[in-house]
Amino acid sequence: MIQRPRGTRDFGPADMTKRRMGEEAMREACARFGFGEVVTPTFEHSELFKLRSGPGIIDEMYVFKDKGDRELALRPEITASVMRFFVNDLSTQPRPLKLYYVGNCFRYENPQSGRYREFFQIGAELIGSKNPETDAEVIALAVNIIRSAGLEDFTVRIGHIGILKSLVKSEIQDEKVAADVLRLLDKEDFDSMGDLFDAKTLPRKLFDKIVAYADVKGDITVLNNLEQSEATDYLKEVFDVLKLYGLDECQVDLGIVRGLDYYSGMVFEIDAPRLGAEKQILGGGSYTLSELFGGEPVFSTGFAIGIDRTVLAIEAERKIDVPGLVDAYVIPAKDDMRKYAFGIVARLRQQGIRADVDLMRRNISKNLKYASTVGARFAVIVGKEEMAKRSVVLRDMKTGGQQVVLADELGNELAKALGRV
Amino acid sequence: MIQRPRGTRDFGPADMTKRRMGEEAMREACARFGFGEVVTPTFEHSELFKLRSGPGIIDEMYVFKDKGDRELALRPEITASVMRFFVNDLSTQPRPLKLYYVGNCFRYENPQSGRYREFFQIGAELIGSKNPETDAEVIALAVNIIRSAGLEDFTVRIGHIGILKSLVKSEIQDEKVAADVLRLLDKEDFDSMGDLFDAKTLPRKLFDKIVAYADVKGDITVLNNLEQSEATDYLKEVFDVLKLYGLDECQVDLGIVRGLDYYSGMVFEIDAPRLGAEKQILGGGSYTLSELFGGEPVFSTGFAIGIDRTVLAIEAERKIDVPGLVDAYVIPAKDDMRKYAFGIVARLRQQGIRADVDLMRRNISKNLKYASTVGARFAVIVGKEEMAKRSVVLRDMKTGGQQVVLADELGNELAKALGRV
Repeated sequence: MIQRPRGTRDFGPADMTKRRMGEEAMREACARFGFGEVVTPTFEHSELFKLRSGPGIIDEMYVFKDKGDRELALRPEITASVMRFFVNDLSTQPRPLKLYYVGNCFRYENPQSGRYREFFQIGAELIGSKNPETDAEVIALAVNIIRSAGLEDFTVRIGHIGILKSLVKSEIQDEKVAADVLRLLDKEDFDSMGDLFDAKTLPRKLFDKIVAYADVKGDITVLNNLEQSEATDYLKEVFDVLKLYGLDECQVDLGIVRGLDYYSGMVFEIDAPRLGAEKQILGGGSYTLSELFGGEPVFSTGFAIGIDRTVLAIEAERKIDVPGLVDAYVIPAKDDMRKYAFGIVARLRQQGIRADVDLMRRNISKNLKYASTVGARFAVIVGKEEMAKRSVVLRDMKTGGQQVVLADELGNELAKALGRV
Repeated sequence: MIQRPRGTRDFGPADMTKRRMGEEAMREACARFGFGEVVTPTFEHSELFKLRSGPGIIDEMYVFKDKGDRELALRPEITASVMRFFVNDLSTQPRPLKLYYVGNCFRYENPQSGRYREFFQIGAELIGSKNPETDAEVIALAVNIIRSAGLEDFTVRIGHIGILKSLVKSEIQDEKVAADVLRLLDKEDFDSMGDLFDAKTLPRKLFDKIVAYADVKGDITVLNNLEQSEATDYLKEVFDVLKLYGLDECQVDLGIVRGLDYYSGMVFEIDAPRLGAEKQILGGGSYTLSELFGGEPVFSTGFAIGIDRTVLAIEAERKIDVPGLVDAYVIPAKDDMRKYAFGIVARLRQQGIRADVDLMRRNISKNLKYASTVGARFAVIVGKEEMAKRSVVLRDMKTGGQQVVLADELGNELAKALGRV
């Protein structure tokens, strides 16, 4: 028996109903914010992702050659593709450009809880503008997407990469060491950072200052304890706009560093605390990536949300009810009624009812059992007598209650019973 | 500048709005027929596709190794994955199983008009039952999907692979030759078939008989000219049920052979004549594939529709209107009104209006130009006087007409003007 590849998943109808409901709600949030959807190819020239994330990314990607011997890679993320699309074809569009995507990404690593080799992301990029209201707009969209998907318990942490970056870079001359310090900061690995300081005989006082900055967390007033700078003023303005958007609960967290070099200002993360150690469901910030791909320098702000983890987090809060696939299952009592039954199911479908009909030539009791197993809401039974009177027996599969209904009235009766009128 | 890989596409917001509208309509058709959606991984062990399509498929696939040195392939089609899913996990579910999918597939070939290296399919499989009503149900679903997507001009051709297959296999003993004859028949390459008959000194009379059968095309009455068989009786029953479903226009075409060995009975194709030579948008039929993948033999009927070609065909019929992304674009006249403007846009979004706001600190006339370029339906202008009276100026971007509206009434006014109440 052939198995599915390791670290991948199959999704059945109940899973997909849940996922489509969530996805639809998230798409609608993007539309309300005036963002338009884009779709880019599933694979790109691998160089694109190396430019964004450094050559190390190659070990985490699925890589293959095309017939022209060019190296391609399954995308590990979608921001690089969106910026490539922007540089190739969209750079003359009126700005800001507000784009979002929903898609699958691939990561070549050992599968573990909540991490898969094929996984799903929704994300957005606002391209061509940089100021506090742009950043607030993008954060507000992220929060709206997550709320629309149905998650209630999450925390938004907002920082500014400029504060720690400029401190580290101005005080540590060796660029490689400075980059290592930032990398360890991002992981909150202060022990290794201390070792590095010792090895390089860097001042302990600087270490303490960096750790103190990275530890600035709390509501917006924590910024009042720091010396005023462009970055702190900027963050305060972002929080002002967020408040106008009705988002009062956002936290400051200057410890967010986010490894990649092109992040230039505001950075933010969203956690779902119920997920424990793997609680981060979103990462984002403002960046200038277009230059890297051969375009002009253009300011952008964006984020990516892990859909798989978000769904896990929602399910940790509450059971998601999945409606059954069939509103009405039509059962001919005998072979003579078979043709009449097909006419009825065809009409119901035209009226927008999700209808099914016996295709196995089973008897009534087996058909009722099937209808119950697949979760059909109603059964529509057609006997000889009913057919003669152009009517049917409508059976409520929840209550077991039955009534005779004229075939001409069936669609309306069902629409009423299903709460669709 | 990094380009997207050859033979792939980027889709911008206007394209995606069109595609999502079409996809949503197609999904709803599946739901009305009681089919449930499944999603399987983008890549599979390459063996799966070799088992379905023969080892030759390897040259047309994107193939790569995973860390365990297993050979993986980007899926060239989705039926094999759905049947693998069925054999692995769904074989104990109540039957029939009615499953559909929407997804991307990959083909490693030279790009040409309407054919891409990454392309999109919607398809369905009805698993676990084989009789005329099962086949009719699947054909009816296919027609409903295509109609729901908006295509008006298309033809449904239905054949039965048993008639020609049994003729060829009973009269030509050499299995390889018989397979070659069927392959040439599928391509309608009668010249090469004649050459093969000459080379193998097969009777000319058999050639004529095969060609005559393959040429049986027309409405259901063409079957009356053939000797009665199990297959002709079966096809007549399929057409009877299709008629009960209101599908009177289907054609018989016994020339449909479909290369693959596991097709066992009814086969069908749908064409969009406006597409010219590349007019086929659907292929399907009944088959027993599960056995091949290590399961028990199970009858299934299914099809796959090329979404790209279907969209091309619809656009050959009529222009698809794409609604703009923004219902209302909010413009603060001066910096003082900026905060007020953010409050207004936040409220509109809560009310389900697709609203946007100036994020570039532009002046009114530049903002009006931007609103017009992005196709915003209304502009909402906030001046000093309006702010003092807690009102706004609502400007219809189509007519240029303006009116003053209370901020508290704006959501309702817009919903009315947009025809949403």
